[in-house]
Amino acid sequence: MKRRDFFRNSSLTIAAGSMFSPLNLLGNNNSIVKSGTVAKNIIFLVSDGMSTGTLNMASLLLQRKEGRQSHWMQLYLDNKAKRAFMDTASANSFVTDSAAASSAWGGGVRVNNGSLNANPDGSYNKPILQKFKEAGKSVGCVTSVPITHATPAGFCINNKSRGDQNDIALQYLPLKFDVMMGGGQDYFDPAKRKDKDNVYKKFDEAGYVTVKTKKELLSLSASETKPLLGVFADNALPFSVDHQHDATLMEQIPTLAEMTKSAIAKLKKNKNGFVMQVEGGKVDWAAHSNDSAGLLYDQIAFDDAIKVAIDFAEQDKETLVIITTDHGNANPGLFSGSMTEKNFDYMHHFKHSNDWVLNGINKNSTAAQIIERLEEAQGYAIKKAEAESLLAHYTTLNEEGLYNPKKLPFKELGQIQSAYTSIGWAGMDHSADYVELAMFGPGSEMLKPFVKNTDLHNFMLDATNVRKQS
Amino acid sequence: MKRRDFFRNSSLTIAAGSMFSPLNLLGNNNSIVKSGTVAKNIIFLVSDGMSTGTLNMASLLLQRKEGRQSHWMQLYLDNKAKRAFMDTASANSFVTDSAAASSAWGGGVRVNNGSLNANPDGSYNKPILQKFKEAGKSVGCVTSVPITHATPAGFCINNKSRGDQNDIALQYLPLKFDVMMGGGQDYFDPAKRKDKDNVYKKFDEAGYVTVKTKKELLSLSASETKPLLGVFADNALPFSVDHQHDATLMEQIPTLAEMTKSAIAKLKKNKNGFVMQVEGGKVDWAAHSNDSAGLLYDQIAFDDAIKVAIDFAEQDKETLVIITTDHGNANPGLFSGSMTEKNFDYMHHFKHSNDWVLNGINKNSTAAQIIERLEEAQGYAIKKAEAESLLAHYTTLNEEGLYNPKKLPFKELGQIQSAYTSIGWAGMDHSADYVELAMFGPGSEMLKPFVKNTDLHNFMLDATNVRKQS
Repeated sequence: MKRRDFFRNSSLTIAAGSMFSPLNLLGNNNSIVKSGTVAKNIIFLVSDGMSTGTLNMASLLLQRKEGRQSHWMQLYLDNKAKRAFMDTASANSFVTDSAAASSAWGGGVRVNNGSLNANPDGSYNKPILQKFKEAGKSVGCVTSVPITHATPAGFCINNKSRGDQNDIALQYLPLKFDVMMGGGQDYFDPAKRKDKDNVYKKFDEAGYVTVKTKKELLSLSASETKPLLGVFADNALPFSVDHQHDATLMEQIPTLAEMTKSAIAKLKKNKNGFVMQVEGGKVDWAAHSNDSAGLLYDQIAFDDAIKVAIDFAEQDKETLVIITTDHGNANPGLFSGSMTEKNFDYMHHFKHSNDWVLNGINKNSTAAQIIERLEEAQGYAIKKAEAESLLAHYTTLNEEGLYNPKKLPFKELGQIQSAYTSIGWAGMDHSADYVELAMFGPGSEMLKPFVKNTDLHNFMLDATNVRKQS
Repeated sequence: MKRRDFFRNSSLTIAAGSMFSPLNLLGNNNSIVKSGTVAKNIIFLVSDGMSTGTLNMASLLLQRKEGRQSHWMQLYLDNKAKRAFMDTASANSFVTDSAAASSAWGGGVRVNNGSLNANPDGSYNKPILQKFKEAGKSVGCVTSVPITHATPAGFCINNKSRGDQNDIALQYLPLKFDVMMGGGQDYFDPAKRKDKDNVYKKFDEAGYVTVKTKKELLSLSASETKPLLGVFADNALPFSVDHQHDATLMEQIPTLAEMTKSAIAKLKKNKNGFVMQVEGGKVDWAAHSNDSAGLLYDQIAFDDAIKVAIDFAEQDKETLVIITTDHGNANPGLFSGSMTEKNFDYMHHFKHSNDWVLNGINKNSTAAQIIERLEEAQGYAIKKAEAESLLAHYTTLNEEGLYNPKKLPFKELGQIQSAYTSIGWAGMDHSADYVELAMFGPGSEMLKPFVKNTDLHNFMLDATNVRKQS
């Protein structure tokens, strides 16, 4: 950002020729952060829709399979992080959606479910990455779902409807954020947008560099300074468990940790620092589908991104790392029984998600094929009656239904699977649970034990000594 | 405790005539607690089987119904307490039972599920209240389930089987603990014990004072110094929601908070301090039954006991209050939907638990009677088909079945109820979830963000500066 832009955008009147840097000029005398602990950078990591049991079972899976704790839990074991409970409610419900949740952090105000930093009266709350960009920092978002999805969007833009992802893609264009990566070709590619608008071309013309494969991402010149748009799938990226067992996908699509590493490498070049959001977005999608393999391996992929962030922050010493979720989802748990550990160990050998299994079944499938497909994907053989009960859902399904997760028999497979894995589910939607929040690095010492989601907005501004912008 | 008993029981050899008090003589140079922050007393409160959603929904219910937060959450909002995650595993499973869980705290060693401070090789771990009693403190337990149940027993005695409550009642006899209160006439009353042993008489002869009603408890002389046994119900005390709506029960049976207050009043007279356990035991029973009214109103009754403990500790300034659960159970949650708040508000008017509802139905009931009973108890009218599905469970039930919660249609009623309350359940048993732990008062500053259940054993000994006893 040019210095004159900074002054124009700032809500402060500042004497020209000041000896202080823009960031210091923005110093907040009422900061909750003690002097000497100002964070230059923030990495804000969100496992979307992560209930307590999701965090717990991912850790247990790693203990059983790899003999280690999750990186998240290891931070606690090493006494390196501060923790809080977070109240995740939105303006109109105890149970938030991801748009209102991200807006709470991103805009500092609770909005109604479905809205992105847009109040019921039509007014807007300025998104936090716009504030940080104006304060001279590099900013960006990385996600495993479309980059136009609710959680990144809540840090970036205003829109009364999260569903308008075609519009959200265009709203990103003028922001020139330094890194925006995830899925979502559907909202950039003229062949896939309903309005045939060539949004990629507009990003090119606006001065972005665009990458669409892992190879292109890793081949970027280290000296590249243009804003980066990375879009690696039509919609969301594949579930991690499916990704890891498909060589083609592994070659084409980066992991969340790889995207996070690339983003940090680019963002850290700004001497004024950077702020980025990293979202493990498909943890939520898996919870909505009661899909245990999708859930736990995506939680582990998110955990790998935590390691990238913490490794950087431990070296850097000026980075505040915030790790949390936006709300619970499905409240899964590993339940008591004589076979609990043996059952849970089936998860070690899962090669594919329930999503992969169910999308490979159609009305012409046989019960024997379903049994074989599940055994290949997840290592256990369901009963013929169970296979037939799954098959029954396809024979009444129209073609559209096959592409609508709500219409595939996710609930039924989740229930059948419970007997094999000892994992149970309390629902297929978001819950009102208070959620886990961890902080590492400068500023974290000010975290209180119980926070509202909206508290994090000013916390981030205060921790970096960036005054609130109008 | 007489001074010579102290020396005999101590594992230390101490010069007679020391100028230090017994507690200081036991000073542990390797204590994790800083000097100046030694706790004289500990109140250890356990909401048995409390998943994150239980804690959360009780708080939400209080917000909606009374416009206030729970006392537990208020401690966090006031930034008065430290928090940790606790790993609750037992020696033989990720998913503990209450006996192994209480033994982890009580004996400092993970034992197999079902055991009380008894190792697989037959050896025993000394229960923590025996250690504190020997160190000169007053000790006791208060619970809403039988006083012989797993959670109090894990702080008091050794037994390879938690199920042997007849034996456990007799094991308490020689301990002369200062306060033991809860339910459990079945294990003391000769008319109710299978072996017809008059255990009450034995307690009388051993020098205890015994109370069996709230009135007797409240009428005790303030100068009474005998050990106190309080037994207020045949088995567990009633669910709080049933208790509050039955004038006779309210007159006869104290609440958990009332028992806690009486216990503290008695225990605090010891100049060497006291250690007590308070258990909200029926939170777990309600979770096993997917009984939302049982669950949330018992969690609130537990929360009222927290207030009693904190009020005392804030005055006293020498009391460490530990608030936690032994494991998750059923992982309930309040789930998203257009009617979530409206549905959840049915809970305000619940007069009775599902336990009360289902125990009042028999094979001669009609669907209309079931609908009426539920509407009277909980304020909503289920459909005729739903009532008939409940009734079907009774027509195949023998008389024993009526007294076995597992055989009443708790699961079915929980599922029917979900549509009215928006509360969902992931199972009917304990879960492996990491659980919430809070500490208030001297010593709490040493709490790390992630602990094993066993860590609390030495934590309590260190916080009070009482060296581990063999």
